[in-house]
Amino acid sequence: MTSKLFPTPQDCEAAFYEALEKADLELMMSVWSEDEEVVCIHPGGLRLNGHAAIREAWRQMFAGGPRLTVHVGQLQALQSMMMVTHSVHEFISARGESRPAAPVVATNVYMRSGNGWKMVMHHASPSPKLERSNTAVRPKTLH
Amino acid sequence: MTSKLFPTPQDCEAAFYEALEKADLELMMSVWSEDEEVVCIHPGGLRLNGHAAIREAWRQMFAGGPRLTVHVGQLQALQSMMMVTHSVHEFISARGESRPAAPVVATNVYMRSGNGWKMVMHHASPSPKLERSNTAVRPKTLH
Repeated sequence: MTSKLFPTPQDCEAAFYEALEKADLELMMSVWSEDEEVVCIHPGGLRLNGHAAIREAWRQMFAGGPRLTVHVGQLQALQSMMMVTHSVHEFISARGESRPAAPVVATNVYMRSGNGWKMVMHHASPSPKLERSNTAVRPKTLH
Repeated sequence: MTSKLFPTPQDCEAAFYEALEKADLELMMSVWSEDEEVVCIHPGGLRLNGHAAIREAWRQMFAGGPRLTVHVGQLQALQSMMMVTHSVHEFISARGESRPAAPVVATNVYMRSGNGWKMVMHHASPSPKLERSNTAVRPKTLH
């Protein structure tokens, strides 16, 4: 576990997406809290708990080297002193492809520790398309 | 907006799932923070921001009356003084059906306010099946 220090949640989030683009496992794991109570949900995937499971999933994903381009937008932040929740849209495309797939909606939760800010939760799931405004849209599912 | 007071995040979460089962729109909206920076993502749905959009989506969902049974399990809680993040599995079935569909994985974020604890984020998405252990499983998607 690298003891990288992120002075703000934004620094931590930037490193997360940099690691994703670079397929850099050590950088990715330096983003996560050393607490074992960490949670990661990839789109359509199972909930992963704890470092070992989270690391192994990223290791498999990164095995092919860097192949993704990620743009992050539409940040909505919910802040308290020691914990921050970010809701973002991720626009992910394969390298060399200009058109991103449908956005992924992600909830990223960061906690302040003695070692700066660290990620404790990443919950990502597919989104049908971008909302154009704040008007409600009929959900496709019961709940 | 009802000014219902929830002394703990657990109380707030219990009211959320009670409202979902009862299709009780006023109870549901009493769960949410009065802050406009609230976010709700239904499984496979768009990100909804703010009270109007969130209320309208629940109103549509609840229009048919109570028809769901919800069991919540596998809580993993991440806590700071003013903000708490819960990761849960929701087992939702139509009333009268004994077998729940595949679980929904949900991230629920609560903030402490002058008016007790309130929900500020609900991010729910389909999960393929339950994890049997903490071992990593190859994700189905790139990210």
